[in-house]
Formats: sequence, C-alpha cells, structure tokens
Amino acid sequence: MKNEHLDFLNEAIKEAKKGLSEGGIPIGSVLVKDEKIIASGHNKRVQENNPMIHAEIDCLMNAGRIGSYGDTVLYSTLMPCYLCAGAVIQFGIKKVIVGESKTFPGAVEFMKSHGVEVIDLNNDECIKLMSDFIIKNPELWNEDIGRL
Amino acid sequence: MKNEHLDFLNEAIKEAKKGLSEGGIPIGSVLVKDEKIIASGHNKRVQENNPMIHAEIDCLMNAGRIGSYGDTVLYSTLMPCYLCAGAVIQFGIKKVIVGESKTFPGAVEFMKSHGVEVIDLNNDECIKLMSDFIIKNPELWNEDIGRL
Repeated sequence: MKNEHLDFLNEAIKEAKKGLSEGGIPIGSVLVKDEKIIASGHNKRVQENNPMIHAEIDCLMNAGRIGSYGDTVLYSTLMPCYLCAGAVIQFGIKKVIVGESKTFPGAVEFMKSHGVEVIDLNNDECIKLMSDFIIKNPELWNEDIGRL
Repeated sequence: MKNEHLDFLNEAIKEAKKGLSEGGIPIGSVLVKDEKIIASGHNKRVQENNPMIHAEIDCLMNAGRIGSYGDTVLYSTLMPCYLCAGAVIQFGIKKVIVGESKTFPGAVEFMKSHGVEVIDLNNDECIKLMSDFIIKNPELWNEDIGRL
C-alpha cells in the first residue's frame, strides 16, 4: 500500500469522525487531483435531514463545478453505494480508493464493470468505525442504504 | 398511456420550465406516493453552482427522509443518468416514468437490470424542451452529463 493512499484515507477518516461528532453517520470522503485534496465531505443525512447527502455526494458538491473528473481520485472510508457509484460512473471518475467494504459491500462490481479501478485498503480503523456505529444505530444505517 | 401519468409528467415539465426560467437546465422531476405528488424538484447545477443537483436528486432531497421508497414512483422529464438511476436502485424505487430518452439514453438498462420498471412516455414537449436547450447550450449540457 502506497503511503499517500493512507494519508488521503486518513483525511477521509477525519471527515467521518467529524460527522460522528455532529451526531451523524461516520462516513467521510475526499477528492484528490494532482496528488492534492481539492474537496472533502461527509455523510449529512442526520445533520441536514437530507437523504441524498452521502459522504461522496457531499464531497463532490463541495468540489463544485470542476469540469472534467478524468484525472481525479475519489477516496471514501466505505465502499460507495449505487448512488455514489452512479456519480463516479456518470462523471467519469476513473479511480476509487476505499477504507473498507467489510461492513457494506456497496456497488463495487458495478464500478468495475464500467472500467473504474477500485482499491480496497481493508483498513482496521474504518472497519471499527462503521461496525461500532451499525451495532449502535441499526435503523439509521438501514435508512441510509435504503433497507427500511 | 394512462392520464394520471401525463398529469404527473406535466408537473415535472412545470419544474423543468421553472429551471429554464431561472437560467438552468430544463429537467424536472416529481415523486409520487398513493397517487399524490409528495415532492418535486429540478436541475440546479447553474442556480446553486452544484454539480450533484440533478432534477431527480433535488426531488429526492425535497422529499426528505421518507423511510421506505418501495411504494413511490419517480417521474422525470428525461431518462435518469447513472447518478440518479443509482439513487433509484439504492433506495428501492420500483417504478420510473420518464418524458423521453431521445435526447439522452440515460441509464435505462442499468435500472431494468435491477428490476426497476421504466416507462418512457416519448413526450413531444419534453423532447423539444431538451433539444432546444442542447442546441443552444452544448457545453453546459455536456458538463451536466460528465462529458467534458
């Protein structure tokens, strides 16, 4: 594992923890271009009472209208769901690096089938963050992934 | 074509025209439950300088945290792209009714492959609305679908 992957993942983890401290779901994301973070975000379902603001969507909102996404890399503490994977595919992000997919398999095959490179860092801190949250908040988690 | 389909589509068209009058991209959407519109929205890329606010996403944001989506029907003036289709699939919307897919094929096969019923009304007004817009604003349209 390259160190810069972990550096960027750690920034996504900071976002996830920020979300948790706000009473939200601990998933964070950063968008990287030319080896620099150009935007970050976290899940805000609870904070903004908004079911569409998954971490990756918040991050891409915060990035603004950047034009082409072909040279960006999206980091997320958790494997993207279909909503966020759909954004990746529609806007042509070619590489996604995730903290883990153990607590949620997400839409990994969907992304790969569209030529997106997906790297799973299988990070212990990310796994623990989500495992602890899901055990304590099963209904909120099921709401966030449309499983109510 | 059932009349209520056209009634709901007409509300989505009103949203699309509202977007156009604001200087935005003319795509509108409504979410229907128990034969009633529970939310509506339109594309706000230009108005809010936000690349994630496609019409369907705006509509689902405006619906708020409704719990289960299993008995909702999503209307859109245009076939949903992968971002919006991803939302449909992740949140378990089972039926999508669109004004047209002539100006943009969208992610129809993706939705169908996940068991979503997709009805294309092939509506002349929707086709003209988008055709006219794309001819006048090709770069903005390409930006909105990630084709820059």
